[in-house]
Amino acid sequence: MNERSLIHTDIDFDRDGRQVSELHLPHSPHTDAWGVMPIPIAVIKNGSGPTVLMEGGNHGDEYEGPIVLGRIIRDLDPAEIRGRLIIIPAINIPAVLAGQRTSPVDGLNFNRCFPGDPHGSMTQQIVHYVHSVLFPLADAFVDLHSGGSSLDILPSAVVEPSDNPDLMAKTLDAVQAFGATYTVVLNNLGDPRTSTASAVENGLITVGTELGRGGAVSLDSIELAERGVRNVLKHLGLMEGEPNGPRDDERNLVCVPGSDGYVYAPAAGVYEPLHEKGALVEKGELAGMVHFLDDPGRPPVEAHYRSSGRLYARRQPGRVARGNCVGVVVVAYRGS
Amino acid sequence: MNERSLIHTDIDFDRDGRQVSELHLPHSPHTDAWGVMPIPIAVIKNGSGPTVLMEGGNHGDEYEGPIVLGRIIRDLDPAEIRGRLIIIPAINIPAVLAGQRTSPVDGLNFNRCFPGDPHGSMTQQIVHYVHSVLFPLADAFVDLHSGGSSLDILPSAVVEPSDNPDLMAKTLDAVQAFGATYTVVLNNLGDPRTSTASAVENGLITVGTELGRGGAVSLDSIELAERGVRNVLKHLGLMEGEPNGPRDDERNLVCVPGSDGYVYAPAAGVYEPLHEKGALVEKGELAGMVHFLDDPGRPPVEAHYRSSGRLYARRQPGRVARGNCVGVVVVAYRGS
Amino acid sequence: MNERSLIHTDIDFDRDGRQVSELHLPHSPHTDAWGVMPIPIAVIKNGSGPTVLMEGGNHGDEYEGPIVLGRIIRDLDPAEIRGRLIIIPAINIPAVLAGQRTSPVDGLNFNRCFPGDPHGSMTQQIVHYVHSVLFPLADAFVDLHSGGSSLDILPSAVVEPSDNPDLMAKTLDAVQAFGATYTVVLNNLGDPRTSTASAVENGLITVGTELGRGGAVSLDSIELAERGVRNVLKHLGLMEGEPNGPRDDERNLVCVPGSDGYVYAPAAGVYEPLHEKGALVEKGELAGMVHFLDDPGRPPVEAHYRSSGRLYARRQPGRVARGNCVGVVVVAYRGS
Amino acid sequence: MNERSLIHTDIDFDRDGRQVSELHLPHSPHTDAWGVMPIPIAVIKNGSGPTVLMEGGNHGDEYEGPIVLGRIIRDLDPAEIRGRLIIIPAINIPAVLAGQRTSPVDGLNFNRCFPGDPHGSMTQQIVHYVHSVLFPLADAFVDLHSGGSSLDILPSAVVEPSDNPDLMAKTLDAVQAFGATYTVVLNNLGDPRTSTASAVENGLITVGTELGRGGAVSLDSIELAERGVRNVLKHLGLMEGEPNGPRDDERNLVCVPGSDGYVYAPAAGVYEPLHEKGALVEKGELAGMVHFLDDPGRPPVEAHYRSSGRLYARRQPGRVARGNCVGVVVVAYRGS
Amino acid sequence: MNERSLIHTDIDFDRDGRQVSELHLPHSPHTDAWGVMPIPIAVIKNGSGPTVLMEGGNHGDEYEGPIVLGRIIRDLDPAEIRGRLIIIPAINIPAVLAGQRTSPVDGLNFNRCFPGDPHGSMTQQIVHYVHSVLFPLADAFVDLHSGGSSLDILPSAVVEPSDNPDLMAKTLDAVQAFGATYTVVLNNLGDPRTSTASAVENGLITVGTELGRGGAVSLDSIELAERGVRNVLKHLGLMEGEPNGPRDDERNLVCVPGSDGYVYAPAAGVYEPLHEKGALVEKGELAGMVHFLDDPGRPPVEAHYRSSGRLYARRQPGRVARGNCVGVVVVAYRGS
Amino acid sequence: MNERSLIHTDIDFDRDGRQVSELHLPHSPHTDAWGVMPIPIAVIKNGSGPTVLMEGGNHGDEYEGPIVLGRIIRDLDPAEIRGRLIIIPAINIPAVLAGQRTSPVDGLNFNRCFPGDPHGSMTQQIVHYVHSVLFPLADAFVDLHSGGSSLDILPSAVVEPSDNPDLMAKTLDAVQAFGATYTVVLNNLGDPRTSTASAVENGLITVGTELGRGGAVSLDSIELAERGVRNVLKHLGLMEGEPNGPRDDERNLVCVPGSDGYVYAPAAGVYEPLHEKGALVEKGELAGMVHFLDDPGRPPVEAHYRSSGRLYARRQPGRVARGNCVGVVVVAYRGS
Repeated sequence: MNERSLIHTDIDFDRDGRQVSELHLPHSPHTDAWGVMPIPIAVIKNGSGPTVLMEGGNHGDEYEGPIVLGRIIRDLDPAEIRGRLIIIPAINIPAVLAGQRTSPVDGLNFNRCFPGDPHGSMTQQIVHYVHSVLFPLADAFVDLHSGGSSLDILPSAVVEPSDNPDLMAKTLDAVQAFGATYTVVLNNLGDPRTSTASAVENGLITVGTELGRGGAVSLDSIELAERGVRNVLKHLGLMEGEPNGPRDDERNLVCVPGSDGYVYAPAAGVYEPLHEKGALVEKGELAGMVHFLDDPGRPPVEAHYRSSGRLYARRQPGRVARGNCVGVVVVAYRGS
Repeated sequence: MNERSLIHTDIDFDRDGRQVSELHLPHSPHTDAWGVMPIPIAVIKNGSGPTVLMEGGNHGDEYEGPIVLGRIIRDLDPAEIRGRLIIIPAINIPAVLAGQRTSPVDGLNFNRCFPGDPHGSMTQQIVHYVHSVLFPLADAFVDLHSGGSSLDILPSAVVEPSDNPDLMAKTLDAVQAFGATYTVVLNNLGDPRTSTASAVENGLITVGTELGRGGAVSLDSIELAERGVRNVLKHLGLMEGEPNGPRDDERNLVCVPGSDGYVYAPAAGVYEPLHEKGALVEKGELAGMVHFLDDPGRPPVEAHYRSSGRLYARRQPGRVARGNCVGVVVVAYRGS
Repeated sequence: MNERSLIHTDIDFDRDGRQVSELHLPHSPHTDAWGVMPIPIAVIKNGSGPTVLMEGGNHGDEYEGPIVLGRIIRDLDPAEIRGRLIIIPAINIPAVLAGQRTSPVDGLNFNRCFPGDPHGSMTQQIVHYVHSVLFPLADAFVDLHSGGSSLDILPSAVVEPSDNPDLMAKTLDAVQAFGATYTVVLNNLGDPRTSTASAVENGLITVGTELGRGGAVSLDSIELAERGVRNVLKHLGLMEGEPNGPRDDERNLVCVPGSDGYVYAPAAGVYEPLHEKGALVEKGELAGMVHFLDDPGRPPVEAHYRSSGRLYARRQPGRVARGNCVGVVVVAYRGS
Repeated sequence: MNERSLIHTDIDFDRDGRQVSELHLPHSPHTDAWGVMPIPIAVIKNGSGPTVLMEGGNHGDEYEGPIVLGRIIRDLDPAEIRGRLIIIPAINIPAVLAGQRTSPVDGLNFNRCFPGDPHGSMTQQIVHYVHSVLFPLADAFVDLHSGGSSLDILPSAVVEPSDNPDLMAKTLDAVQAFGATYTVVLNNLGDPRTSTASAVENGLITVGTELGRGGAVSLDSIELAERGVRNVLKHLGLMEGEPNGPRDDERNLVCVPGSDGYVYAPAAGVYEPLHEKGALVEKGELAGMVHFLDDPGRPPVEAHYRSSGRLYARRQPGRVARGNCVGVVVVAYRGS
Repeated sequence: MNERSLIHTDIDFDRDGRQVSELHLPHSPHTDAWGVMPIPIAVIKNGSGPTVLMEGGNHGDEYEGPIVLGRIIRDLDPAEIRGRLIIIPAINIPAVLAGQRTSPVDGLNFNRCFPGDPHGSMTQQIVHYVHSVLFPLADAFVDLHSGGSSLDILPSAVVEPSDNPDLMAKTLDAVQAFGATYTVVLNNLGDPRTSTASAVENGLITVGTELGRGGAVSLDSIELAERGVRNVLKHLGLMEGEPNGPRDDERNLVCVPGSDGYVYAPAAGVYEPLHEKGALVEKGELAGMVHFLDDPGRPPVEAHYRSSGRLYARRQPGRVARGNCVGVVVVAYRGS
Repeated sequence: MNERSLIHTDIDFDRDGRQVSELHLPHSPHTDAWGVMPIPIAVIKNGSGPTVLMEGGNHGDEYEGPIVLGRIIRDLDPAEIRGRLIIIPAINIPAVLAGQRTSPVDGLNFNRCFPGDPHGSMTQQIVHYVHSVLFPLADAFVDLHSGGSSLDILPSAVVEPSDNPDLMAKTLDAVQAFGATYTVVLNNLGDPRTSTASAVENGLITVGTELGRGGAVSLDSIELAERGVRNVLKHLGLMEGEPNGPRDDERNLVCVPGSDGYVYAPAAGVYEPLHEKGALVEKGELAGMVHFLDDPGRPPVEAHYRSSGRLYARRQPGRVARGNCVGVVVVAYRGS
């Protein structure tokens, strides 16, 4: 069977200047037999130089990336760069329009679908296009995530680790150039289906982030993202100048210590945390407790940390199901 | 027709000591023909003295009230008080179990249903019970609200204004005894259907709050609520001791200046705010802008403040519909 | 405002013979601007005599009534009776078509809506028609219920008690003529909004039933209903002959001893009962226990009987929410 | 209790010139605790003269009215009129945004809710505002309906009949001034809850329409509506000039002959009609038949006309439920 | 793993005469553990001759095919043909019962699922049966489509193009024999997953159609389909006689000129078209505009044709999402 | 791509004693970006001996298995056995929590998903873990099913047939050791995707059951399951003692005679059965009839048995769709 993507576009990836257009994914639901799902895309190109693919809206409730990439699309003068930017600011467009982490069309999490499927459901088709058409065009990949509706995370730049030492070194450099106070090595417990895992697997220098919190748009994360994206472009040689950011002694390079870094809700109910984000905590210490609001006579059930370190992320909504992530602890990164 | 409530309970409101039980509301949906919706209730009584009705879970995604009232139910020794506490920590129990502002059973907002209806839908029946059975038993009413899923509010104690100068004075005193940095006079633009408006209409000294934010459980608000509830009980003479809290010069008595205090989203999209909660802002100043993430070439639409003052509340979720509240400004309160 | 029903029909209630037609309730949802909801109705009349209104499908998942009334509509020769039968075999037609206790159109329980509202939602309009048009035409009312999806009940005839001693005596006689092994006095804890409570309030001799179980069609209940309906018609003088049924010493006249007759699930989970329907049980005895299948290490929570007597009804589905009715105990009836 | 509307607006109904703004209805769902539902409204006023209230979007899937009223709001020079236009082009705004006949917020049909309720659900509150605030400001009322999703209707102007002969005469004149080929006297079988029935009850000269078809936007109906609205304004003296339209011999004044005018689907399935809209049909003639597509061996069930006349409306979607309106026949109007 | 279909039937494909039965697809959802989804099928056979597979209900809201094929199943005398007809009049039966384009069971579009999967979801299993069992039995394939709920299309016969010149010639002949005024070469922009693309890929002479409009049943399309199907059978030699239809000079052989033939909604709102179906339009001409009914002060956004030609299809529902197909233009076909 | 399961656990399958813990399946929906779905698991091990894998909750509305396996987890002393028990009492945990046959997360039937997919949807991932991790650890597999919500089945032990005579013999012995009155050979019409078919394919001695009925928890089935599970462990040598159960002359070894054993609803409506479960019936005999409650004048449609034998299972809910299984007949088993 034909394994080419059904997505088409009028973008010319080789043309200089700014193009703002759409990817057209044929979509034939009950409400629209012969239409398309339009996915915004822009190419800003000036002469020769590296190609950086910049993605926002991988999850639809993480807003700093799409906002900042939209500003770049509207405001960046092609003359400011040398090379090519391919910008997909709201790649998972149905999720972005719904303000949901996952796509309302097929229920899938875009970031658990790589390498995709050209004849699969909508999310699988978009992923396949990114993997089979856009990744081969790029030298580097910037994937802007935020905490989303369910998490409140320390604003940070994220390293997807690689087994290739050379790529790992280049990636660490590029992520640190982003200039966040926290740089976190994070591999989703080894899940190969994320966009950054797939990008690294395909040899791209890859920069991730965790910005914002609780499904909100945060001023400080917007500022961090605007500066960080430019820092990465400077580091990669597309823009002139030196990356700026915190002083070295204000920076932290940390990692999640495997599954012990996570605290999960031990029961369904409402979770009351006992520490603020950023606190230093001890293995075995009480992290919080689950309350049973329909049964106030029943004592709450306790959750404890399983690793010492710094509290990197906390759950946003009070109500929890058993197994929901209520806390993530990070420790100093000492290389792989 | 019989206009008595169909709700029954084994609680004896006149008995001394601690009783923890349930209100039983007959409920006959498809899944349970002859069952009840159980609503937790506790009475803690010791001798004679005022009766304070304390309510949490008016909205189901505001957790500090239910958590703190649950602790009081489990931990308060009846000997610590003189008088009677009637505690309904999760009054809108279907909403509390769902973590939703409104009831999943009938879609109603409990706080827009007073005085209720004994033969109406579930929310209307619960409201009717509070209004016709519990309000007449009480001298004072404490209704613990938080920001809920959609708002991030400065933690504050809230005054529901009264046309009765004597009741207004007593209410202002009781709310200030709560001991929050911000005491806010707030009447929901005159809506008579809220629990506090109805309580004031029925002559109860009434203390409201806005704690927490974004549907999360916040440590500082838990602490404020625990101290504030005890402060009110001390002020009303049920507990011994003096209320404590911020120094006088750290306190702010403010009010919402009518409908001009509100900033509404001027279009559907994603709202980027330009000020942090607590900031001082000017009438006419740019408050934020709505981005169109599916159309990055389209410039965002601006929203402006319609009153000068302090930014008291902001919207939590980035995605907005036209008309969503994205900001609330308060000004100094100078009496009515 | 005009308070007449908007429902119309081509039935002539005064004509002799068999008429099978529909009530037409104007209904204007998205899918059908100018249509009607058709509700089946039949009138079988022969000369003068009492009028009996027979209703099935009050709840949409109780099938014995509609099946048996449908057979009567198709098969009963008008010459077999003296008087008039008005038969509404599927009165809550949207619920009947959905196989749901409550109406999918407005979510209401038909049997909690009397006396209805001519301009209200669909269920309220149908109830109003029964109350304001059909009740005044009738001398007696037969309302055929079954256990429905959530309950497994001993097949029985049901007495809605009346404060009027004369009506109460006539009603007891008519219900016992139905000829079930169990005759149960049952008033839904005094709820005035049921069809039988409203019928009694309006002076009708009223016969209720609880047939079938678990949302299924049961052979023995079909047989009981076919004989019982004819027995009632004989007792009321519309048909010739004597009612037949169990011997006197096989009959039980019992009642629900108020709210203590009910056992409610003490927690959410899966309920394991310890007695079969019909068993004799003791107050305080262990009735069953709620298991937590997601947490097999947690011991189950126990439920106990609150009254001695016979286990009249049990919950059908294993899964329970807190407050679901898991058992009903009846005791001997000794008059009011 | 306070019975004033909670809706507020910055519109000054007495000011000359064009004002385009919103009604703000406080709305407090889960997603937006303190926001409003904004309902567009415009006032175009020039000096003294009659006030005409023009409404579109009573049902949310009837588009010609809102489109044409929007053009008037944007394009009409206040100098073109004498008097006042109050234009609410999308009154049932949640339904309009959803493209649904009924409101997605409370499930209600706006046109079955008059006179509304200031403290009821959203639709009831909007209706109450129209009834209690806008009707008293107006001399005449133009309510622009189309066929909507479920019907395909001959484009026509509609007369809501009045018992008051003087008002009936004025109304007939105004509706005929609209200038449609078909003028239809239509009272929804006497339902008093529609906006036009309520307007007539309140003494307003009232002009209705049925434009468009099948939920689509039709070119000819747009043209008819644009001319018709201006014709009515000329007739009422707000604009200069004479109404224009079809020649007298091309006009038809007809009415629906009561419930016999309607053909309802006799079974659930797919309805195949046998006549085009506008055809002359005979009482008893075969109108169409219902097919059972899952059982092709079963012969279709037939539906017949119950009145002779002209086929005024037909069902749009092929699939039908029992009771759906599949045809409406009109006959010559001969006065009441 | 076993790759045979789990579908079974009692049809004997080799038996002469008429058989009307079902395909039984084992289906085990919550409501029916051990049942089947029955799919109607008929075989009409008389002696030797070609086999034609005729399919309706590929999409569940396209009714002319299933109605006409049902009539053939009930009425065609086997003696009228030589060869074999295999008729699946409602192949996507769950969608047909729901009146939806896509299956309510798994959300899939049957016509984007070829070649299917014997162990996949329901739609995939049905597709696999058609592809692996029925296609190999057939010489020719007739797939009857209509415009469905979202489109209003010129009634037409459709050619799925083939790279094989011989098959393409035979297919063109067969489709033209159908006898529509418009014969359209249409390949869904090269999508290989449609039933006709798959049939052509498997060497079947394939005849498609686009009948009806807007989810309605249209009289003229019913007539065209009844004549067209018989024309094709005559052309293929199963029935005697010559195909009839429009005169040669009334026929149009056209094609969609690639993606430029489509006009997509440039924004979400309500689309007002400016031309009737069938009109001749110019590239760059204004096609219509999107109105913003919640913001009447905002000017509408324009859409333009991207190809000159004849307007072949238009969107039916007024409300559009960005990217919805609002128009399709066809041009003269000049061979591939 | 990495084909290892993403599920992890802290269970040590080689450790002696009792371990009660969870499988952690990373799950990243909108409500919980970084959490897990916890699946309860226990290992009880004592020295060397066979490994038996025991599964409950394959379908989420079949409760006897999970309840009985939970008791074993809590109560069985490791010293009582020789060998290893791996117990997954609620394997399809989202379905178990919902009380649904199929998973609410992805809509899949766990028992139609073998061999699963490590990167697929949640059900596919759990199935893959059972197939690729747990099956290889086990010598025997006990899969406890009940009738679930839609069926009422004679409590029985079930044999999944094997083509391997040796395995078939061992399986027959083990299933008969369970000690049910009915032992049924049942292969779901050859579906290879069930857990027992997959287990047999992988060489495991496999014991199935059908307990309980109608979604309820039944006392007699609980008792049978508790005894049966111990009987199997005795038979396999993990526990001491002899299996006990009915006398040989009380036992029945039967099988479903292919697709003719099933009776399907011939139309949509309400099905009235004519025989009790366990009755002896004849091929061609009337099994029941479908009533049309919205059309009482229409005679019911009949269903007939297609095989002589004993009525093994009946449908529980009265309402049926066409094709629903309303009865299953079994015949004596005479070997394969």
